Amino acid sequence: MADDRIVEPRLLRGFRDYLPGQMNAKLAIIATIRRVYESYGFLPLDTPALEYHETLMGYGEDNAKQIFEFENPEEEHVALRFDLTAPLARVVAQYTDLPLPFRRYQVGPVWRADKPDPGRFREFTQFDLDSVGTPSSAADTEILCGVYDTLKALGIPRFRVRFSDRNVLNTLLDFAGIPHSSSRPVFRILDKLDKIGLDGIVAELSGGRVDASGDKIRGLGLGTGPIDKIKKFIAVPRGTRTEVLAALKQLFGEVPSATGALHGLGAICSSLDALGIPDEFVALDQSIARGLDYYTGPVFEALLIDALEFGSVVGGGRYDGLVARFLGRNIPAVGASIGVDRLLAAMTKLGLTETAPSTAQVLVTVMEPEKIIEYEKLTREFRQAGVNAELYLGEEKGLSKQLAYANRQQIPLAVLVGSDEFQKGEVTIKNLKLGAQLPDKKTQREEWLKLSRTVQFAVPRGECVSHVRRIVSEL
Amino acid sequence: MADDRIVEPRLLRGFRDYLPGQMNAKLAIIATIRRVYESYGFLPLDTPALEYHETLMGYGEDNAKQIFEFENPEEEHVALRFDLTAPLARVVAQYTDLPLPFRRYQVGPVWRADKPDPGRFREFTQFDLDSVGTPSSAADTEILCGVYDTLKALGIPRFRVRFSDRNVLNTLLDFAGIPHSSSRPVFRILDKLDKIGLDGIVAELSGGRVDASGDKIRGLGLGTGPIDKIKKFIAVPRGTRTEVLAALKQLFGEVPSATGALHGLGAICSSLDALGIPDEFVALDQSIARGLDYYTGPVFEALLIDALEFGSVVGGGRYDGLVARFLGRNIPAVGASIGVDRLLAAMTKLGLTETAPSTAQVLVTVMEPEKIIEYEKLTREFRQAGVNAELYLGEEKGLSKQLAYANRQQIPLAVLVGSDEFQKGEVTIKNLKLGAQLPDKKTQREEWLKLSRTVQFAVPRGECVSHVRRIVSEL
Repeated sequence: MADDRIVEPRLLRGFRDYLPGQMNAKLAIIATIRRVYESYGFLPLDTPALEYHETLMGYGEDNAKQIFEFENPEEEHVALRFDLTAPLARVVAQYTDLPLPFRRYQVGPVWRADKPDPGRFREFTQFDLDSVGTPSSAADTEILCGVYDTLKALGIPRFRVRFSDRNVLNTLLDFAGIPHSSSRPVFRILDKLDKIGLDGIVAELSGGRVDASGDKIRGLGLGTGPIDKIKKFIAVPRGTRTEVLAALKQLFGEVPSATGALHGLGAICSSLDALGIPDEFVALDQSIARGLDYYTGPVFEALLIDALEFGSVVGGGRYDGLVARFLGRNIPAVGASIGVDRLLAAMTKLGLTETAPSTAQVLVTVMEPEKIIEYEKLTREFRQAGVNAELYLGEEKGLSKQLAYANRQQIPLAVLVGSDEFQKGEVTIKNLKLGAQLPDKKTQREEWLKLSRTVQFAVPRGECVSHVRRIVSEL
Repeated sequence: MADDRIVEPRLLRGFRDYLPGQMNAKLAIIATIRRVYESYGFLPLDTPALEYHETLMGYGEDNAKQIFEFENPEEEHVALRFDLTAPLARVVAQYTDLPLPFRRYQVGPVWRADKPDPGRFREFTQFDLDSVGTPSSAADTEILCGVYDTLKALGIPRFRVRFSDRNVLNTLLDFAGIPHSSSRPVFRILDKLDKIGLDGIVAELSGGRVDASGDKIRGLGLGTGPIDKIKKFIAVPRGTRTEVLAALKQLFGEVPSATGALHGLGAICSSLDALGIPDEFVALDQSIARGLDYYTGPVFEALLIDALEFGSVVGGGRYDGLVARFLGRNIPAVGASIGVDRLLAAMTKLGLTETAPSTAQVLVTVMEPEKIIEYEKLTREFRQAGVNAELYLGEEKGLSKQLAYANRQQIPLAVLVGSDEFQKGEVTIKNLKLGAQLPDKKTQREEWLKLSRTVQFAVPRGECVSHVRRIVSEL
């Protein structure tokens, strides 16, 4: 080894490690999402981290700037995937015998060479769901229901999935007399409603404003006529999906594009009602636009109401044109992307994650190191009986230090075999979880005496495994 | 979108997609490995795909050449991780409050800018297990047992985990009178025993040879004295672990380093015997060396006996010096790396994987598209009852095409609600899996008649979900 310098152990800016406690929580979230979408018949897909640069292009200029790109040994222009949608589009175009609709899920890291900030990372995990190959509103409904079922299954008490339709916004342009060529800047401004409020929106649509950091943001220069109509649109009161739909119908009145634009939303609303999805959790909200240019129909996002500062944890919509870059023709598609790390951060803040670092259910302490084989045998018996068992292999010889380790790792049980137990052919079982809940020995002596007998007790060696298995099953 | 060209959908050389059938099989393998190692108390870790280039260096020149490297926006020299061991070393050095021994597992892709060949990829998934912070032979035994348990749990009937110790090879150098400074080329040649046989080994140790492609391989120029001793070493007959250990003891005789070198192996053998791990599956094999320079103690690998052409599917060993690059001192560590893709490929060849593309257990066919909401409701009921249900959203209106789709996707059940069923308030259940097993209608008419009644039958709408749930549980 040529290089004998001491290297500083450090992460790149914008990257992070997941140590066991957080990683256990992250794996649990991923397993839950997967379970929900497998119940919908979604199929797993995996694609490479690296793609030809041109494969990933064409999804907006902002994205293009954020791509990690370089040359491979063949001097080809390659890049780390920016999202899981562009690779899906490639896959659909490349494997022409995929059964359609192709409902696929994919979970994995994506990379963006964004400016790193606290809470803003250059690598993060997305869990994507997409149905490719069907224009049916039932596919849109399915994605929405799946997001609802997922957030419910994760145990999040208060959340809101909000959906609208890009075509409703196009009808708004007609209604307000704004040419469709201006759709992009207008929708981008509308999408900021949560962040800058109605006054900010109006300012950006008209003469511009100065933001919190003192920077001047140029306005679009719209007149009061169009702006009043946009204000009316935003002012459509929140309510049940049926109420919002009726209010939009009334607002747009005779605008020719209204009927078509509201048709898809109507179908989704009818299905959601029939399926018993509460309005409180899945709301029609005409004001959401979603930044990405490629949406062509319904769009949606999800917020955790008690953790709004994390922004939307799910985003998605219908994007019928995505595969066209490869095939020269459209294939209808609808999908959602769940931001797993953001969801984890929000759930951790809300106390909704289990972040115990350990996977072990029992620690086999080592009191007589020269008899290590006996401890190895006992440990193996636990494992074979389906109990996750860790053999203590640290440097501490003393029992109290070994138990302190078990407590720190939140391992609920420990077993002890010292010279006494070896002689008697016994094993002492210690329920550390229960031990932590013991009442005060002095003031509640009777209660303490009663419980302490279940906290620590000796059993014959041959019965030890079944005892532990029973206790573990009751934890 | 600036770029309107048609882009060819294609993968980079050396990269691959996992479509649903293979991906289901891969996920099942990963879940099994994870279950085994969690039963051992191993904890999950995740680290970034990208690291500082210097973090990944120092693990051999070959590896350094294969690294995908580039500059990030800050013009720092970064690289895609080459394995999961270097990031682990960084983590152990960086988080000084990790509980030791730190038993961690990590599963994820690694990247090597290797020359791509059939079966040789630039991105592949490793499942790594390591115990960091203990010199105990019990930790070595644990890793070996875990590999044994894993391959058993995967249902592989014939495999062999082979282990030896780097120190035994050092003693071989003493025994053969070869200076330790030549250890690297000698061990590399020994490691090729499976590939080039004893004659090839002897040729490379002495005057060299010409390989199959006609290339001249230079020899080390060793004399017949050392080579004879190496031949004796290789010739130690295979047998039980105890037999091989005794034979090595006898061979080395009074070589001073022998006692120490064989001590660790002896402890592992005693433990494996006590734990009842069969010699047939976990064998002491003095001839394995493992290519990587950083091993300092036991080394091991695993082969599938009926798929030897895939090479070793697991490799590992003890590497006490790995963290020294960061800390300036050694931390004892032992670990194994399971090549998930290679294992999958070998198991697929052996017919040991389930590669059904679908996750759905029942397909809800759509016979009257205008009543889609009724089908959506039925589908949701299945999902809420814990049955994975797919709603047919393809373009085929005819039932037979929809059933053909279910068969292709290996979805075992389908439910049918046509005008007749709507009128009667019934649902027809069709067991496609059983249907495929029906005897010939003509020659085995009675049997056919009996079974066909369980292949397809109608039930009241309200009882449909519980019927399907029962059938699914019996599949």
